[in-house]
Amino acid sequence: MSRAMAKWEQVEGDLATPAGFRGAAVAAGIKKAPDALDLALIFSDSPGTTAAGVFTTNRVAAAPVVLSREHLVESRGRCRAILVNAGNANACTGKAGLHTAQETARVAGELLGIEPSQVLVASTGVIGIPLPIDPILQHLPHLKESLSKENAKAVAQAIMTTDTFPKTCVVRSTTKGRTVHIAGVAKGAGMIHPHMATMLSFLTTDALMGERMLHHLLVEAAADSFNRVTVDGDTSTNDTVAAMASGLAEVSVIPGNDSRSWFAEGLTLLCQTLARMIARDGEGATKLITVEVVGARTPLDADRVARAIANSPLVKTAIAGADPNWGRIVCAAGYSGAKFDPAKIDVTVNELPLCRKGMDAGFDEGAAHREFEKKEIVLHVDLHAGRTSSRVWTCDFTKGYIDINSSYRS
Amino acid sequence: MSRAMAKWEQVEGDLATPAGFRGAAVAAGIKKAPDALDLALIFSDSPGTTAAGVFTTNRVAAAPVVLSREHLVESRGRCRAILVNAGNANACTGKAGLHTAQETARVAGELLGIEPSQVLVASTGVIGIPLPIDPILQHLPHLKESLSKENAKAVAQAIMTTDTFPKTCVVRSTTKGRTVHIAGVAKGAGMIHPHMATMLSFLTTDALMGERMLHHLLVEAAADSFNRVTVDGDTSTNDTVAAMASGLAEVSVIPGNDSRSWFAEGLTLLCQTLARMIARDGEGATKLITVEVVGARTPLDADRVARAIANSPLVKTAIAGADPNWGRIVCAAGYSGAKFDPAKIDVTVNELPLCRKGMDAGFDEGAAHREFEKKEIVLHVDLHAGRTSSRVWTCDFTKGYIDINSSYRS
Repeated sequence: MSRAMAKWEQVEGDLATPAGFRGAAVAAGIKKAPDALDLALIFSDSPGTTAAGVFTTNRVAAAPVVLSREHLVESRGRCRAILVNAGNANACTGKAGLHTAQETARVAGELLGIEPSQVLVASTGVIGIPLPIDPILQHLPHLKESLSKENAKAVAQAIMTTDTFPKTCVVRSTTKGRTVHIAGVAKGAGMIHPHMATMLSFLTTDALMGERMLHHLLVEAAADSFNRVTVDGDTSTNDTVAAMASGLAEVSVIPGNDSRSWFAEGLTLLCQTLARMIARDGEGATKLITVEVVGARTPLDADRVARAIANSPLVKTAIAGADPNWGRIVCAAGYSGAKFDPAKIDVTVNELPLCRKGMDAGFDEGAAHREFEKKEIVLHVDLHAGRTSSRVWTCDFTKGYIDINSSYRS
Repeated sequence: MSRAMAKWEQVEGDLATPAGFRGAAVAAGIKKAPDALDLALIFSDSPGTTAAGVFTTNRVAAAPVVLSREHLVESRGRCRAILVNAGNANACTGKAGLHTAQETARVAGELLGIEPSQVLVASTGVIGIPLPIDPILQHLPHLKESLSKENAKAVAQAIMTTDTFPKTCVVRSTTKGRTVHIAGVAKGAGMIHPHMATMLSFLTTDALMGERMLHHLLVEAAADSFNRVTVDGDTSTNDTVAAMASGLAEVSVIPGNDSRSWFAEGLTLLCQTLARMIARDGEGATKLITVEVVGARTPLDADRVARAIANSPLVKTAIAGADPNWGRIVCAAGYSGAKFDPAKIDVTVNELPLCRKGMDAGFDEGAAHREFEKKEIVLHVDLHAGRTSSRVWTCDFTKGYIDINSSYRS
């Protein structure tokens, strides 16, 4: 497989664009709004399907996370269905919550003619309130009957909570005359400490690979995308990224082969595109902020500085007000724990220097204000302390966030 | 010195209530508002005065912090004056900023008849803009002339930035017929990641002690008060707590003696009272929140859980909306890094159980809402994992914060 054939491009489509997949969504009454889609199913018709997942590292993991981890092990990565609901996270719900997750997976498996362990489950929404099982069991037969290529588009809508737009991305590459697709949907999160707000993403592909290969590729791509939306190792109770590979494109992804880096490139492009959509749609957000840190002493230092800046409410509120308050950026770098000389740090917004050698760069206030008014902002920080770099995505921080989160349960 | 005589009580007063101190404040034109007090001086008439300070651990330390650290060493803890301005932090201002700090300390020392190294300096306000030296030099003679017992009250006002009320506390204890006072003023901070917003506090006492004793006592008291307002090791560019002891009450505080624990008790009471005022007056805050964590495996685990909850914008916005969203509290504990069994955690607000053994405690929604509507809220979390505990103070998180911080510079 030659690298010359290995271009990936974004195309229109949905989770059923890769061969072998169908999807559907229904309004089961779990969300407060009566007609809102809130229960979705993704299914692979291919018996040879492989699956993988990466999950929250939160000690308090929701029931669907606990069960899906078990199912991936039990089925040896042969899951063929993902059942997901929005409106209730089924977290902090004890044994009853686990039973609900198990029972819905069992019934879904029965309807689909697969083992219960071949069904992954995911939930998002309010924590600590029992997830009602009846509406799910009641709507499952209809949901199964609705599975189709056409209905797969609705899945992105059904998994939304406070998201303002559905997030779908499809990428395509042609190699040796065969076309491979990777598709994904995602739902986002509050953007300040997003390790507390649920991030879900479901991916499908018709490439052919073993479940361990899929797992490794998924871990790598998530580290370079979803985990850079200021989500670090600490995550919500429900965070889940799950992928299924149908193999029907008959293009193999094999360890130690060019095919691995080729597929990794497409998967990373897909995941980064979804991750940027999540950042852009942070609760109350009006701007997408990319924080780039270069010249760090170590990769850990680069990461610390990037995340400290991206997590700083003072930086993010200043950007909401288009205030070129670069002192807050330098200050966040200073408390990040990274080692650098404060008299060497440079800060640039888009192409405009704000700070040089730790001091005001003598920028034009109006020009800086206009840069910060843009919808996409790149903060570039050079520590001049070494050769490593890091990049994270975040958003500005507005009153909209408070509106959304001060009465989420009520 | 018997413990029976060692009661401390809060009394009316100001920084000049302890014998030997005078104070003054003027409007030097550093703040935007033309008549706002923004330059203050605290002076001890006692040549035997000892001094100590604890400062930010931020790698990017402001010029006054750098200089004050030097002066404490150079004078061997014999500082007798504190010169402080609000409106400009003199941070990220390079060599020029350090020169301004040095020059103002030199002129103040000259006017007061003491060495430049006996003057501590502090600044708070916007970062990265040169602190104008002329208004300070111009107003210093008048400021020195204004030093008096009566004018000391104005210092608390002059150091305010976004604070909504001046913060002063005085405590008193009588031992062997002699009365000792400790007085303090403070200014506060944004409350979300307050390690980025400046916290200043200046303390005076007429107890008699060596500079090393004062330093140790100050470090201990700060750890149990100011550093528990969700401020951890990571702090702003300017954070400063400085204390001077005039010795004029002629009551000695001596190592290895009851007098040490007696004075420590008074100093901690004073600092905790000021710390709670800072939390209550967090930017945009409407409520004082105390987070108590018990039953932790280790002190570090207790601290991690308390700070994760106190720093969580999702918890704090829920409390702003009086929403008893205990799932967010459990979730924050879960990602804190502490080890505990999620099936054992209990969460209580004031006296009302919200969560028992990781699940809904079956509380009355209206009753819980009323608890969260109170102006003082205690969140009590029992991890049932060990015997250690921790406590931090914070505030709720409202739209007022965004208003204040989205255009701080402009």
